[in-house]
Amino acid sequence: MSGGNQTRGDMTGAQSLLGTMMACGVDACFANPGTSELHLVAALQTEERVRSVLCLFEGVATGAADGYSRMKGKPAATLLHLGPGMANGWANLHNAKKAKTPLINLVGEHATWHLPLGASLTSDLEGLSASISDWTKVTKTSSDVGADMAEAYQKSMAKGGQIATLILPANTTWETGGVVGSPLPPEPLNQISSAEIEKAAAILTSGRRVAILTTGPSLVGEGREACTRIAAKTGAKMFCNGLNRQMERGAGRMEFTRLSGWGQVTLEVLAKFDDLIIVGTGLPVLSFAHPEFESVLVPEGVEVTKLASAEDDVTGVFVALSDAVGAPAESDVEKLLTKRTEYDLVTGPLTADAIGRAINKFMPEGAIISDESGTGGAGHYPITGGAIPHDILFLTGGSIGQGLPVALGAAIACPDRKVINLQADGSAMYTLQALWSIAREKCDVTVVMFSNRQYGILMRSLGQYGISGLPNRVPDLFDLSNPDLQWAKLAEGMGVEGHTCDTAEDFNRIFEDCMGRKGPQLIDAVI
Amino acid sequence: MSGGNQTRGDMTGAQSLLGTMMACGVDACFANPGTSELHLVAALQTEERVRSVLCLFEGVATGAADGYSRMKGKPAATLLHLGPGMANGWANLHNAKKAKTPLINLVGEHATWHLPLGASLTSDLEGLSASISDWTKVTKTSSDVGADMAEAYQKSMAKGGQIATLILPANTTWETGGVVGSPLPPEPLNQISSAEIEKAAAILTSGRRVAILTTGPSLVGEGREACTRIAAKTGAKMFCNGLNRQMERGAGRMEFTRLSGWGQVTLEVLAKFDDLIIVGTGLPVLSFAHPEFESVLVPEGVEVTKLASAEDDVTGVFVALSDAVGAPAESDVEKLLTKRTEYDLVTGPLTADAIGRAINKFMPEGAIISDESGTGGAGHYPITGGAIPHDILFLTGGSIGQGLPVALGAAIACPDRKVINLQADGSAMYTLQALWSIAREKCDVTVVMFSNRQYGILMRSLGQYGISGLPNRVPDLFDLSNPDLQWAKLAEGMGVEGHTCDTAEDFNRIFEDCMGRKGPQLIDAVI
Repeated sequence: MSGGNQTRGDMTGAQSLLGTMMACGVDACFANPGTSELHLVAALQTEERVRSVLCLFEGVATGAADGYSRMKGKPAATLLHLGPGMANGWANLHNAKKAKTPLINLVGEHATWHLPLGASLTSDLEGLSASISDWTKVTKTSSDVGADMAEAYQKSMAKGGQIATLILPANTTWETGGVVGSPLPPEPLNQISSAEIEKAAAILTSGRRVAILTTGPSLVGEGREACTRIAAKTGAKMFCNGLNRQMERGAGRMEFTRLSGWGQVTLEVLAKFDDLIIVGTGLPVLSFAHPEFESVLVPEGVEVTKLASAEDDVTGVFVALSDAVGAPAESDVEKLLTKRTEYDLVTGPLTADAIGRAINKFMPEGAIISDESGTGGAGHYPITGGAIPHDILFLTGGSIGQGLPVALGAAIACPDRKVINLQADGSAMYTLQALWSIAREKCDVTVVMFSNRQYGILMRSLGQYGISGLPNRVPDLFDLSNPDLQWAKLAEGMGVEGHTCDTAEDFNRIFEDCMGRKGPQLIDAVI
Repeated sequence: MSGGNQTRGDMTGAQSLLGTMMACGVDACFANPGTSELHLVAALQTEERVRSVLCLFEGVATGAADGYSRMKGKPAATLLHLGPGMANGWANLHNAKKAKTPLINLVGEHATWHLPLGASLTSDLEGLSASISDWTKVTKTSSDVGADMAEAYQKSMAKGGQIATLILPANTTWETGGVVGSPLPPEPLNQISSAEIEKAAAILTSGRRVAILTTGPSLVGEGREACTRIAAKTGAKMFCNGLNRQMERGAGRMEFTRLSGWGQVTLEVLAKFDDLIIVGTGLPVLSFAHPEFESVLVPEGVEVTKLASAEDDVTGVFVALSDAVGAPAESDVEKLLTKRTEYDLVTGPLTADAIGRAINKFMPEGAIISDESGTGGAGHYPITGGAIPHDILFLTGGSIGQGLPVALGAAIACPDRKVINLQADGSAMYTLQALWSIAREKCDVTVVMFSNRQYGILMRSLGQYGISGLPNRVPDLFDLSNPDLQWAKLAEGMGVEGHTCDTAEDFNRIFEDCMGRKGPQLIDAVI
C-alpha cells in the first residue's frame, strides 16, 4: 500500500482509522511505534491533520497524551507497540485514569493468525490492558477498525473521561475493506436528582459550617465559577483533592484549598466543619496506610454527604446547586477572588520559596504549570497562588514521572502559552526521554528541576513511620547523590538548553531570561 | 521498629522476608522502593549479606535482576512499588520470561484495610502481575511472609525458570509475628522418556540430514558440551534461537547457528535438512506476521520432532541423547570447536564490522557481552565468534531497553569479569537510567552505543512490507536525528565517563583503553 488517497473498497484498516480519528476530532497522536504498527505509521505520516509526535519511551507518550487531553478537553491518541509498549505507558495511564482524562490508546498486536505461535514479542496484551483501561476492545477485521475507533472515542469521553484502549492486530490495519466510522453520540452523564440537590442546598443554607470537597471539572470554567458563587453566597469552604487534573489559579480566581493525603493536617482542617459535601471524588484518605492512624480522614462528628461521583455530571451539580442556594450566574463573588500578590525576589541559597517568588514575578499570563515538584519544590505553592492567572496540572495518580510528559503534551496543545514544569529530580528520571520530544517539537517549555538529590518523600516517610537505626542518615536506597545527576548535561544530551544554579540570584536571572523568550530550557535548581 | 536483630516473636514480616531470602540464597535485590516498601528497605539496609542496588527506574531493576540471574543461575529479587512500579518493570520481565530466567519480584501494596479506599496509588496490581508473572501470590499476614517467600523462590526455579511475584501489603511487612521460611525442595523438572530419546537418537543416526534447534541451558556448560558431542558424532547441525538467555561463545567452543526471525533466510537454511528436532523451545516462526509469507518457518518436506519444551529437563535430554547416539563425555569434538580468528583493525568510517574487529582483538577472556546491538550493530556478530572465550546475553523477548540493565546485573553478578554492552541507540533510550546505577556501583561495564540515529529495524520493515510513498525517506516517526542524541553527555550526566567517535581509528584507540582498565565507560560510536 502507499499512503495516498484511495477509493473506499481499497481503503486499508489503517486508513479507515485515520479517517475516523479525524471525523471524531482526534488530532494528536503521541507515538512509539514498532513493526506491528507500520501501516498505522504509514497512514499517520501522510495525514497532516493529525499531529504525530514521536516519543522515545511509551511513558512519555501516555503522559503527553494526558497533558494534551487535559488542556483540550478531548482525547489525544497514543500509538503503542504490543504488550511491552503498553506496559511502558501504564504508569502514566494510571495518572490519566485517576485524573479522569479522556485518552485513547491504539496498541498494535500480532496478526490474528500469528498470535498463537508464541513469537518472541507475544504476551498477554489483553490482560495487561484490562488491568489499566476502563474499556478495551480487540478489533476483529479491517472492516471493523473504523467503527471500533468511533466507539473508542465515545468511551474515552464517557463517565467524565476514561482510558479507552483499542488493540489492533496488524492484519486489521493492512487489509483492505476499511470503512471510516461515524462519530457516535456522546453517552449522557449520570444526572443527580433535584431532590438530592435540594438536600445539599438545605445543608448549605442551614447555618451549619459546611465544607465542600471536589476535583476535576469543578476547578475550571463553568464549574469553578459555580463553586465560587456557592462559596460566596453560603460561606461554604471549597476544598479540592491534593492532586487535580487541571486547576485555574491565580489573581481573579477563588483559591480552592487542597487537602493533603498526609493525615493530621487534613483532620485538623476538617474538624472545623459540621458537614462535608463530596462532589466528583471520594472520601479523603491517607495516601498510604499507617499502623497508628485511621485511613479515612474524616473527623468524628463531621456529617458526610456524597452528592456525586467522578462519573456523574459534576459541573451540572454545581450549576444546579448554585441556583438552588440562590447564587445564579453574575452573583457578586469579588470578596473571594485572589488578589495579585507580589513578593520580593531574594538572594542567597536557593530554596523552593525563592523559586516560588521568581515564578510569581516573571511567569507570563496564561502560563501552564505542570507540577511534579515533590517534597523539594512544594514550597512554591503558597507563593504562586497570588500570581497572574495561570493553569496548574498535578500528578493525579501519584505515579512519578508525569511532569515532563504532561508539559510536553500541554505545550503541543497550547503552543501560544508558556509551559513551566516544576519537577522533582527523582521523579524526572522515570521519563526524562520527554526532553528529547520537547526539543524536537521546539516546545515552549521551561523545566525547573528541583534537585534535592534524594527521594525526599521517602525520607519524610521514614520519620512518619518511626523507622530509625539505619546505618546512614539517608539510606542508600533513597540517596540520589552518589553520583549527582547533572541535569544540564542530560538536557543538552537531548537537545534542550541546560542551566545549573544553586543561588537564588542566579536562578532569578536565568528564569527571567527563560520567561522572556520561547523554546525549551531546563534549569537545574540545586536546592 | 529498628533494623537490628530481634527475637522471633518480635520479628516483623519484613525481617522474616530477609531471613528467608538469605536461607534460599537470594543475595541481590534491585530496588526502586516507595512508601509501601519502607519496612522492607529498613530490613534490607541493615543486612549486608543481601546486595541492594538502587535503580532509578523499575525497568532497570527488572532488567538488572535478569542479567544477574542469567549469570548466577539463581534468582535475584526486585523491589517494586505498587502497580506503577511493576508496570514500569513489565517490559524487561517480558524479556526475562522469554529467557526462562528465574526471577522474584517483591512488590509492595497498600495495607490490607487501605486497599479498598481508592487512595491515589491504588490500582489492579494483581491483574497486572497476572499478565506477566508465571506465579503471583498476595501475602495475607506477617506470619505468612517467610513461607510465601520460600514458595516464591521455589516457583522461580521451577519449570526451567519462572517469574515469581510476591505482593506484600504494607502491614504484612511492618507487623510482627514474622517467621523465617524454610527453603522448599526444588520442583523436579519434567523428564523426557527414554523411548522418546531413543526415537530421536534413531533419527540422528539414520543417515538423514538432521538439524537440532534449541536454546536456554543447551548453550552453556554441560548442555553445550553434550550438544557438541552429539553434533560431532552424528553430523547433526546445531541451531539455536536468534535470541538466547546466555551463550558461551568464542574459541574452543562449538558455534551454534542462530535462526533469524526474519523469514526467507531461515527457510533456506532449514531446507537443507530432512529432520528438525526441537529441544527446549518452540517452532521457528517469523518475528512478525507478513501478508505474503507463512508465519511458521519450517520448509515443506522437513519432518519436525518436538522432543522437549522449555519447561522440561533440557540439559538432561541432551546428556541422555549423547549417550544414546554413542557420544559420551570425553568424546572427541575438536573438529567442531571454533578456532581463535584474528582480524586486522581497520581505519576510516566507523562501521559495525570495524567495531567487531576491535572487540575481537581487545576483549579480555571471560568477558560478558550484553548484546542489544540491533540493526546498527549486528555486523559485529560474525567477527566476534572467533574471539577468545566469552559469554553473550541476548534480547530474549524483543522488548527493547534490555541491554544496559542486563549489563548492570551481569556486572554485579560477576565483578571480576569485563562486561561489554553492545547497544542500539534507540533501544538504549528506554532504560538509560541504568547508566546511573552502573556509575554508582562502579561496575566494570563498557557501553558501545551504535548510534545510527534511527529506528533502523523499522526502516528495514518498511521495505519488507513494501510500504512506500511516504513524504520523507526516513519517516519522522522512525527518525532519531532531530535533534541528535549526545550519548557522551547523557553518560556524563549520570556519572559515566563518555567518549564520542565516528572513525574506526578513534574507536580502536578508545576501546583498547577501556578494555585495559576497570570502571564504567560509554563510547558513542556514530555509525
